[in-house]
Amino acid sequence: MYTLHWIYFIIMAIGALYFYLLSRNPSGVPRYEYVIAIFIPCWSGTAYMSIALGQGFLEMNERTIYFARYLDWVVTTPLLLLALSLTAMFYKKQKDKAIIGSLIGADVFMILTGLIADFSEGAQKYIWYSLGVIALVIILYIIWYPLRQIATTSSEELGKHYTRTALYLTLFWIAYPTVWLLGPSGLGLTQSIVDLLAFIILPIFSKVGFSILDLAGLRRLGL
Amino acid sequence: MYTLHWIYFIIMAIGALYFYLLSRNPSGVPRYEYVIAIFIPCWSGTAYMSIALGQGFLEMNERTIYFARYLDWVVTTPLLLLALSLTAMFYKKQKDKAIIGSLIGADVFMILTGLIADFSEGAQKYIWYSLGVIALVIILYIIWYPLRQIATTSSEELGKHYTRTALYLTLFWIAYPTVWLLGPSGLGLTQSIVDLLAFIILPIFSKVGFSILDLAGLRRLGL
Amino acid sequence: MYTLHWIYFIIMAIGALYFYLLSRNPSGVPRYEYVIAIFIPCWSGTAYMSIALGQGFLEMNERTIYFARYLDWVVTTPLLLLALSLTAMFYKKQKDKAIIGSLIGADVFMILTGLIADFSEGAQKYIWYSLGVIALVIILYIIWYPLRQIATTSSEELGKHYTRTALYLTLFWIAYPTVWLLGPSGLGLTQSIVDLLAFIILPIFSKVGFSILDLAGLRRLGL
Ligand SMILES: CC1=C(/C=C/C(C)=C/C=C/C(C)=C/C=O)C(C)(C)CCC1
Ligand SMILES: CC1=C(/C=C/C(C)=C/C=C/C(C)=C/C=O)C(C)(C)CCC1
Ligand SMILES: CC1=C(/C=C/C(C)=C/C=C/C(C)=C/C=O)C(C)(C)CCC1
Repeated sequence: MYTLHWIYFIIMAIGALYFYLLSRNPSGVPRYEYVIAIFIPCWSGTAYMSIALGQGFLEMNERTIYFARYLDWVVTTPLLLLALSLTAMFYKKQKDKAIIGSLIGADVFMILTGLIADFSEGAQKYIWYSLGVIALVIILYIIWYPLRQIATTSSEELGKHYTRTALYLTLFWIAYPTVWLLGPSGLGLTQSIVDLLAFIILPIFSKVGFSILDLAGLRRLGL
Repeated sequence: MYTLHWIYFIIMAIGALYFYLLSRNPSGVPRYEYVIAIFIPCWSGTAYMSIALGQGFLEMNERTIYFARYLDWVVTTPLLLLALSLTAMFYKKQKDKAIIGSLIGADVFMILTGLIADFSEGAQKYIWYSLGVIALVIILYIIWYPLRQIATTSSEELGKHYTRTALYLTLFWIAYPTVWLLGPSGLGLTQSIVDLLAFIILPIFSKVGFSILDLAGLRRLGL
Repeated sequence: MYTLHWIYFIIMAIGALYFYLLSRNPSGVPRYEYVIAIFIPCWSGTAYMSIALGQGFLEMNERTIYFARYLDWVVTTPLLLLALSLTAMFYKKQKDKAIIGSLIGADVFMILTGLIADFSEGAQKYIWYSLGVIALVIILYIIWYPLRQIATTSSEELGKHYTRTALYLTLFWIAYPTVWLLGPSGLGLTQSIVDLLAFIILPIFSKVGFSILDLAGLRRLGL
């Protein structure tokens, strides 16, 4: 278990290094896009390192609560949504603060309700979980309607790139609450090793994979 | 007690829905004003729901500390001040970051000192409380002098609307530390049911009521 | 020990008052520079007051952990870096968000790793500490290369002022992890009274002293 988390830490470090190297030759993509892409794996790798060191979790009621995951998510998921928003508004001088604010507000809300759900039992757990799911639905709505419209009306190329990136994000983000619900935090149907593995593999794709896809597209547009 | 908090939750949900419906026809008011008005009752309703679920408070030294209130306030009060500032700067392209920053800084400081005061006893409690009151005085000073000047010099109509809204906010915000001081968090003169009721009724007016008043005025100006 | 913290509190209050008086006659320096300079000692003084009141520390494993220091730093160090960045970008209309974001991200990361290091033992402590040092190296790199370049290419005068201010900051900031490592939080080579005194004297220079130096230079440029 500890080894897996160290491997994750190393992958995140390589990801951060890769985005740093890319940023040396920005190809018309604003530098803050790289800053976001670099910061996300640094933060997440450190959060998982705390688990690898035996610190980022608690044993409670015969169950292990990995609170470090929420510490990871509460910072990285707003940044991922910020990156996606900035992609959609790539050609806009004035960024739409109403959309960015709504996304980040709903997202922080979602992660906090998930944290409370993980520490709750019985009916309470599922009430908090449901609120988190509602927030996720709102996030997906914003991504697919108002935000997508900004991208598609900006340019055809950007619209295509945005739709691809948003689809990628949507698929992975839906996997999180599913794994959570099936695992020990929720119904407890899957074994804890499955849960552990899922939360190692998913974030590699939804963080480093996402940024690779997003930056590659923007670099093509920026040239 | 739990019923009251559920009722509050429902009122907040209705408030959020109402502002969402208003935002469908923005009438010249920037969309972020609606985003703020919608987010405030969502956040506050959830905080009170945690009390209704039996989670958002602690029993300590024969006293109940509703820490969920501070979790509510630390997010919603900066947003209320942000909404008020944006109202004052309605006609300004460039928002005054010095004023918004001071208001939010003083406000977060005020709520944190209140939280520490609630967990402290004896002289310590009143030292923390006094610091919070100083912060509130600074907030009210900024609202009534520099911020009001921005509004009144922008347009006569806006000046009137701003003064009305600021007065409404001031009256309710002064009620909070008063109720706090008289109730079990402070001197313990009023019964805990009075305190509980006050902290159900006050926020309905200072959140949903405030946003109704503010948005109605802006919509009249925006037309 | 308590007396020393009260003295610190009073010095910070005087500092805040001094910057407030300066702000009455801004001399061409934007008002947010003063807001930052005023807020820093207010926040820090309050954090140290919590130590003076016997609340801002914990006795753990025969050692005193002053967690209030981290509460101080997590807010004041980003503001110090923000002030330095705004100094470098004094003549720029459009502030460089990539640089400001990187500095603040690395800084919050550094303070959090320091907090965790203080609560950890043995090898874990030094792993967290090392991560914090890496973050500090990144911060210093950004200050001395990209940020300094912005200042020096803006104007010769500004370049000189920036270099002086950045050097002052660098010297004090390097002192923090050194004192930390030698003191009871780290190797425990120095006595706790030395540590306590150092963390009273250092922040006076790195907060109030820094802002005096920075504002004086900007006021000369602004005239
Ligand atoms: C809806 C929902 C959840 C969603 C979590 C998500 C969507 C996490 C995404 C994480 C990412 C993308 C991490 C970084 O790569 C929780 C909190 C599990 C439980 C509560 C309900
Ligand atoms: C001055 C002061 C306080 C003020 C609280 C206020 C002003 C709260 C406002 C809340 C609102 C408006 C909530 C949302 O509607 C405390 C923290 C009680 C105690 C410390 C001193
Ligand atoms: C590198 C490093 C540290 C650096 C702390 C610094 C640089 C603090 C600066 C504080 C200031 C300037 C306060 C306000 O005046 C810690 C957290 C001690 C320990 C972990 C490693």
